[in-house]
Amino acid sequence: MLQALIFGTTGYTGIELIRILSAHPEVSVVAGSSRTWANKKASEVFSYISAEKDFPLVELERLLDKPEADVAFLALPHGDSAIAARRLLESGVKVIDLSADFRLKDLGTYESWYGLHKDPDLLNSGVYGLAEIHRDEIRTAELVANPGCYPTTVILGIAPVVNIDGVDTSFPIVDSKSGISGAGRGAKLNTSFSEAGEGFRPYGVIGHRHIPEMEQELSLLAGRKITVRFTPHLIPVSRGMVSTIYLRTVPDLDAETLRDAFEKFYENEQFVRVLPKGIFPDTARIRGSNQVHISVEIDQRTHYAVIMTAIDNLVKGASGAAVQNMNIMFDFEESAALMGLPLFP
Amino acid sequence: MLQALIFGTTGYTGIELIRILSAHPEVSVVAGSSRTWANKKASEVFSYISAEKDFPLVELERLLDKPEADVAFLALPHGDSAIAARRLLESGVKVIDLSADFRLKDLGTYESWYGLHKDPDLLNSGVYGLAEIHRDEIRTAELVANPGCYPTTVILGIAPVVNIDGVDTSFPIVDSKSGISGAGRGAKLNTSFSEAGEGFRPYGVIGHRHIPEMEQELSLLAGRKITVRFTPHLIPVSRGMVSTIYLRTVPDLDAETLRDAFEKFYENEQFVRVLPKGIFPDTARIRGSNQVHISVEIDQRTHYAVIMTAIDNLVKGASGAAVQNMNIMFDFEESAALMGLPLFP
Amino acid sequence: MLQALIFGTTGYTGIELIRILSAHPEVSVVAGSSRTWANKKASEVFSYISAEKDFPLVELERLLDKPEADVAFLALPHGDSAIAARRLLESGVKVIDLSADFRLKDLGTYESWYGLHKDPDLLNSGVYGLAEIHRDEIRTAELVANPGCYPTTVILGIAPVVNIDGVDTSFPIVDSKSGISGAGRGAKLNTSFSEAGEGFRPYGVIGHRHIPEMEQELSLLAGRKITVRFTPHLIPVSRGMVSTIYLRTVPDLDAETLRDAFEKFYENEQFVRVLPKGIFPDTARIRGSNQVHISVEIDQRTHYAVIMTAIDNLVKGASGAAVQNMNIMFDFEESAALMGLPLFP
Amino acid sequence: MLQALIFGTTGYTGIELIRILSAHPEVSVVAGSSRTWANKKASEVFSYISAEKDFPLVELERLLDKPEADVAFLALPHGDSAIAARRLLESGVKVIDLSADFRLKDLGTYESWYGLHKDPDLLNSGVYGLAEIHRDEIRTAELVANPGCYPTTVILGIAPVVNIDGVDTSFPIVDSKSGISGAGRGAKLNTSFSEAGEGFRPYGVIGHRHIPEMEQELSLLAGRKITVRFTPHLIPVSRGMVSTIYLRTVPDLDAETLRDAFEKFYENEQFVRVLPKGIFPDTARIRGSNQVHISVEIDQRTHYAVIMTAIDNLVKGASGAAVQNMNIMFDFEESAALMGLPLFP
Repeated sequence: MLQALIFGTTGYTGIELIRILSAHPEVSVVAGSSRTWANKKASEVFSYISAEKDFPLVELERLLDKPEADVAFLALPHGDSAIAARRLLESGVKVIDLSADFRLKDLGTYESWYGLHKDPDLLNSGVYGLAEIHRDEIRTAELVANPGCYPTTVILGIAPVVNIDGVDTSFPIVDSKSGISGAGRGAKLNTSFSEAGEGFRPYGVIGHRHIPEMEQELSLLAGRKITVRFTPHLIPVSRGMVSTIYLRTVPDLDAETLRDAFEKFYENEQFVRVLPKGIFPDTARIRGSNQVHISVEIDQRTHYAVIMTAIDNLVKGASGAAVQNMNIMFDFEESAALMGLPLFP
Repeated sequence: MLQALIFGTTGYTGIELIRILSAHPEVSVVAGSSRTWANKKASEVFSYISAEKDFPLVELERLLDKPEADVAFLALPHGDSAIAARRLLESGVKVIDLSADFRLKDLGTYESWYGLHKDPDLLNSGVYGLAEIHRDEIRTAELVANPGCYPTTVILGIAPVVNIDGVDTSFPIVDSKSGISGAGRGAKLNTSFSEAGEGFRPYGVIGHRHIPEMEQELSLLAGRKITVRFTPHLIPVSRGMVSTIYLRTVPDLDAETLRDAFEKFYENEQFVRVLPKGIFPDTARIRGSNQVHISVEIDQRTHYAVIMTAIDNLVKGASGAAVQNMNIMFDFEESAALMGLPLFP
Repeated sequence: MLQALIFGTTGYTGIELIRILSAHPEVSVVAGSSRTWANKKASEVFSYISAEKDFPLVELERLLDKPEADVAFLALPHGDSAIAARRLLESGVKVIDLSADFRLKDLGTYESWYGLHKDPDLLNSGVYGLAEIHRDEIRTAELVANPGCYPTTVILGIAPVVNIDGVDTSFPIVDSKSGISGAGRGAKLNTSFSEAGEGFRPYGVIGHRHIPEMEQELSLLAGRKITVRFTPHLIPVSRGMVSTIYLRTVPDLDAETLRDAFEKFYENEQFVRVLPKGIFPDTARIRGSNQVHISVEIDQRTHYAVIMTAIDNLVKGASGAAVQNMNIMFDFEESAALMGLPLFP
Repeated sequence: MLQALIFGTTGYTGIELIRILSAHPEVSVVAGSSRTWANKKASEVFSYISAEKDFPLVELERLLDKPEADVAFLALPHGDSAIAARRLLESGVKVIDLSADFRLKDLGTYESWYGLHKDPDLLNSGVYGLAEIHRDEIRTAELVANPGCYPTTVILGIAPVVNIDGVDTSFPIVDSKSGISGAGRGAKLNTSFSEAGEGFRPYGVIGHRHIPEMEQELSLLAGRKITVRFTPHLIPVSRGMVSTIYLRTVPDLDAETLRDAFEKFYENEQFVRVLPKGIFPDTARIRGSNQVHISVEIDQRTHYAVIMTAIDNLVKGASGAAVQNMNIMFDFEESAALMGLPLFP
């Protein structure tokens, strides 16, 4: 059995890693870090964990001290991840980092959005862990930077047509909507049930930190600069994310051509579904699964392609993608532990 | 007391009219139509209605037969409204129609989106009832076409800058999100709690019927053709609507200039609030009120103005606006029965 | 205009007082206390407050210093209320306290459930402010102890039959369910959207603090000791409360007799509705109103009366009842500002 | 691979069977019945179903015609199930029936709650499929009557102490709360999002059809008549069920004794967790799993045991229990396909 560590076990991405890995036939979680719950067993915090899948929760620092494991998942705040990553790598533990620390390749870009990097020398060791785009690099990586949730929906929603004729992908407008678990597990008034429950609102309208990641990856794919206008909103659901992407088209482009480009691009991908004409993605039919649902329409009246992508932000947008990356890095079936159907309803 | 009739009493906009009018010091609902509940009293259907505010529910046809009232609210399907409107007007009853039947001025446009019009001769008698734009015409109207909910958010979100320098309003991209009550009160699988509850999805991505209404009014304001790229989505809340509007700008425009234009345009409007910089509208802080909250931002990186407007789709998006129109038509305080604060949380 | 102060303005009961009082024709909120938002205007915290209804937020201590007002609403934690109440009363300001400080008449009982009382001498000056039971005393009170939300549902659900033949009210079993706003506005993990949102759970199963209050009032009405078995649960709604009350009956009692007793008891009450046979209370049809809906059934198979009472915990369960008390104390229409229909849907 | 048929594929229990069985290593769904979607593939209705797990949807009648399969799950209305069951059994297909048709052993009881039975001769062939109680009989059964969701929570919540000293189990009061998926997938106004979404209400207060099933099984366990006072309520969540059970106790019984009885009774059960003192079950930590969480408290003040049981009504309350039964009948690991952790948050 592969031995796995989870850093930041009791946040939402940590909790989700427990859930997904518990179904993995080849992996065992041997320990997790937790500030709040150190020195407890995981089952004392989450009563649904069975004795045979139980593991100890310890202080972060203790878990970094001579770690014996094959792989570590870092569900830590950025900054903390960079520090932990080096120590783990030096102990021979492969690292899948769910923070932003190794997603951006350019130090200046990182620092203008996130502040000083804690380990700039490691910056370029990380492989951007979006399997559908970088599978081969992930296979041999020691350090994988797991993508952000919003960038996953945007990159997968534009990649197939980034250089197709008739579509202007240089200035996408992206209107995204995320479930509230995306705000993390800290108690905050504006994500409390009574305040967020029957509401809907934009936030971070100017300068959300996921922008540089989208632009880096799309520009790389296009071979030219792509600039994204991005607006996130909060949906009153715990999980689920939809991005509605607007791309200017030439007048005579038809939706079928575009949909074909998507289908061809993803024809060998197990987790991506291009939906038939007139069927739109619904987070309720994604929840709990690692699937990506994509709809492609063209508005002939206004000459826009409208691409809609949906994921579960905690699965394909975080912990599911992380396990997918682990499967690739350790040569397991890429879909191991990830074939679970969504919980509908 | 002004005598009011409600046609289509037990749908959501009818129910909301009961609620709002029950607080009106000068108006009394004397009867309502209902197919399902004819020959009952309103309080038998809605146990919260008190004896003194009670009124009979009767068949539509009976209510049209020599109606004795000052004003009628039509919360009927389009088509039915047109037929009822003529009979009411001929009996000297002023009409506020919440359907689409009299919103579009051009018969061809109406018929290409809605099918044959049931009373084309009346088409141009209707005044488009968005008080912030057409207050003077409403004052003397016999027939008011109450605006659609989406168009309300879009027209109010663009009107103040429709011809301002530096903003291209000819091709707005509008990404809208609506609470589920907007789909009406008929039982449908896709608006059932279990299916819609923890979900979020686009719908009607190409060719939603509210588009011609937005374009008619914006083009009229601009004095030139405006074409809207419009995508509606369904939020799992009963009430609430947000439109996020993208307008291309010249590079050097600042947000303050834009926000000033909004504040000036709405300075005498009781129901419209232009929010301070960095504060975004939240449907949870609108729910149950007739208010419109608007945020205005400019993204200097991508040269887009992002305008966000929020309303309660059943109040300012329907029944509240209808009562506002009635107040204007009958020379009451425009805010009578409409000053209630939102129900937060 | 009556001048009112709100202590604890930005908690949920404070916010709800603002909403309700804004519709009151005879009352003006002149200032409020807030720890977090002192030195702001209320409209800066709640953008929906209009200029004409605006008022300053100040530190608690400052608001207690020579207060000039007719009435003060205390939406403060217990303990703090006792201290504030004395200072206000000494300045000639009538006090309506929404905390538990003056609800219990017996000091020993208070202290065994809440700890040391901060002003025991005042304990017996408070009138228990459930208007349907203590209206006459409230009329002349200087200090009113506004009832807890759960006790409101339980007392009103048993009072009409507390001494009726054939019903054993000495040991009621009460199974209650409350919306999440009842937990207050502090940010807590277990009331966050993601944790509470799609859940339902009991809490405080043994020894909830609202028990002595129920027992005091029911025992007083009965003239003998009544002991309540009480279990609260949390519903994933922001507002709304239902209590399901089980009372043992003799075999031959029929539901009509019981329902008649309720109807007679409440026949002059504007806010209480006894629902017809087979109709059950639904918090969705109460939300935002001061109404109490009561259903009464008898199970002939098991010889139990099942009484179900529903309120909006923030209105009749808190701020609505407080305004109702104010109306009585100052000889306004008892229903002033309280006739608003529920927000349905 | 075991060949399975699902009758009533596109209702919620059918959908849930697809989800659970898709993870089963030894079972393949070969066909399903659907009135609405006959002649489509399952993946055309549920876009998340992959090609390799796809299967045809056909008319009920066609699926009953010479069925070739090892097992059939009947997610049909009662009445229809009885008819289908006989034909399947005659073709040598084992049947797991999720309707009420074979749960009650007494024909008179069945007919007084459900009307005429469609195949009385089969009535006593069915084994009541609550594995924790009837595992051995299930092992050899040809026809299993899968338990109702409410009865599952009630029987499992009382069975361990049904004959313990000091607890009076003859007249349990059961106050239950169910997620809305329990009402089935038909579109109904009272389970629409807008009507049920922010509400909570009792229903079926007198005479819910699940009562005889609870009483039959508890009486059987006790060896004497047990009569249940049962009130169901609707929670605004799609999945989840809690029953709060009140049992009278003698004064000196302590909670530890009771909790021990539960722990001992369930010590070899993989799906039942007796929670530690002070921890209460929460449907949010059950959702999607086959687990049963039970809390046991004693109120020394009123001499009541309060037992709280929670399940996911679609899993342990329906389709999960059905698969558990199938595993037992076909000698698979009892937990095969059922070890998935809950989806939290």
